[in-house]
Amino acid sequence: MTIAGPPVESIANARNASELAAIANDDMAELITKHPDRFLAAVACLPMNNIDAALREADRAIGDLGFKGVQIYTPINGKPIDSPEFMALYEKMAEYDLPIWIHPTRGRDTPDYSSEDYSRYRIFAMFGWPYETAVAMARLVFSGVLEKYPNIKFITHHCGSMVPYFGQRIASFGRTIVPRQGMTKPPIEYFKMFYGDTALSGSTLGLTCGYAFFGAEHLLFGTDMPFGDEYGDPCGRIISSVESMDIPDSDKRKIFAGNARRLLRL
Amino acid sequence: MTIAGPPVESIANARNASELAAIANDDMAELITKHPDRFLAAVACLPMNNIDAALREADRAIGDLGFKGVQIYTPINGKPIDSPEFMALYEKMAEYDLPIWIHPTRGRDTPDYSSEDYSRYRIFAMFGWPYETAVAMARLVFSGVLEKYPNIKFITHHCGSMVPYFGQRIASFGRTIVPRQGMTKPPIEYFKMFYGDTALSGSTLGLTCGYAFFGAEHLLFGTDMPFGDEYGDPCGRIISSVESMDIPDSDKRKIFAGNARRLLRL
Repeated sequence: MTIAGPPVESIANARNASELAAIANDDMAELITKHPDRFLAAVACLPMNNIDAALREADRAIGDLGFKGVQIYTPINGKPIDSPEFMALYEKMAEYDLPIWIHPTRGRDTPDYSSEDYSRYRIFAMFGWPYETAVAMARLVFSGVLEKYPNIKFITHHCGSMVPYFGQRIASFGRTIVPRQGMTKPPIEYFKMFYGDTALSGSTLGLTCGYAFFGAEHLLFGTDMPFGDEYGDPCGRIISSVESMDIPDSDKRKIFAGNARRLLRL
Repeated sequence: MTIAGPPVESIANARNASELAAIANDDMAELITKHPDRFLAAVACLPMNNIDAALREADRAIGDLGFKGVQIYTPINGKPIDSPEFMALYEKMAEYDLPIWIHPTRGRDTPDYSSEDYSRYRIFAMFGWPYETAVAMARLVFSGVLEKYPNIKFITHHCGSMVPYFGQRIASFGRTIVPRQGMTKPPIEYFKMFYGDTALSGSTLGLTCGYAFFGAEHLLFGTDMPFGDEYGDPCGRIISSVESMDIPDSDKRKIFAGNARRLLRL
């Protein structure tokens, strides 16, 4: 199958992130229309450098294009995910009752040591990306976003990143952290409100830990595409890693499809 | 029991880190001599700002005071743990065949976002410390330290931090990282050479993941003292978390005592 992509000139002529996001979303919508046998739905990218434009694009993507959620990055242009300017998006997505995918981002130019000026050995991605996800989750919890929007659905990459393994550490630290921003439950309970994808590069071990932390209803199949064969068939390994989990088949069906159907209201 | 500690004037009169480390180690040695019913051995602190002094203090602590290993921090004065100046210590500890404990460090003044000037909600410690450990482990692997000293024993805090959960991610990334510094095995095999303590704040879930990654011979009982009751009986919870693991009793005995006896040659 050849995927054409948007005309190069329309990208070159875009005046800002808002127009670029619209081009990308329109192209995704076209892809779904053309190939309903392969694609069920899409998730919108948003021009988060302009929250008003992002809110409009979310409405357009969900309302006009039939998209089933939005994806944001963390950090957002260097800013924390709980910055006041982004709250309107969380309110909107809670109203739509559709998920927000969070993808971490960090570049080689973020050094791991104050004595260095860049990150060696791709550590910025190997560990830095999961770290960014964990920090974002903590910021959403401790700023009270999950308290304020109890039905909000954040889907985290890499199966909740550091959170399942460090669940008890979070619980332990949580006792000592103030202010609580009106939180009515122990902090760890909010961490369990997140959803995690299965993109742990094929680790049944990690998935089992994530499953025990989040529960069967909060894991969703995800593959880390477009990582390809240089990483050794990542997609196939992730499918096998779910199949190898020592859990009921009914829970595997939830992870592979049922949870996504429920969250995306397909 | 009252523990007196070194005379205040000897600390005030110390001219440098080297003298301070000697005071601390001497005092630890005295404590062990006075209370052989409570303490079996100690681990040296080292003046890592001066590697020659650190090497001398390691020799003195192990040779004269009978200490059973050394503890270093990561980062080391802002520098990566695999900086060339520290290699002489790793060579020495490989020759002694005694362990090096690695403890992470990071302060509130290390922000989590480029738009901020300090870390909120104690994230620098909750997730930042385990992140520092994972980065240090990666640096030791990819710089070839574990290839060069195959019998070296690094004991990592928080049960290997991010490494067990992200084992397959590391394996996956490892395929793509060059240069390999003469490494003869896939990178993930070196990560399995580390040892992990049980200080996961009482998480049987995390320990089970760490156990599956490192193996029963590479886990050592550790408690995260002096964290106290504000964290909810951390010591008791860590003991329970090991006891609750669904593993053979013989492996629990290794984790509680046998592995320490072997590594510390007690």
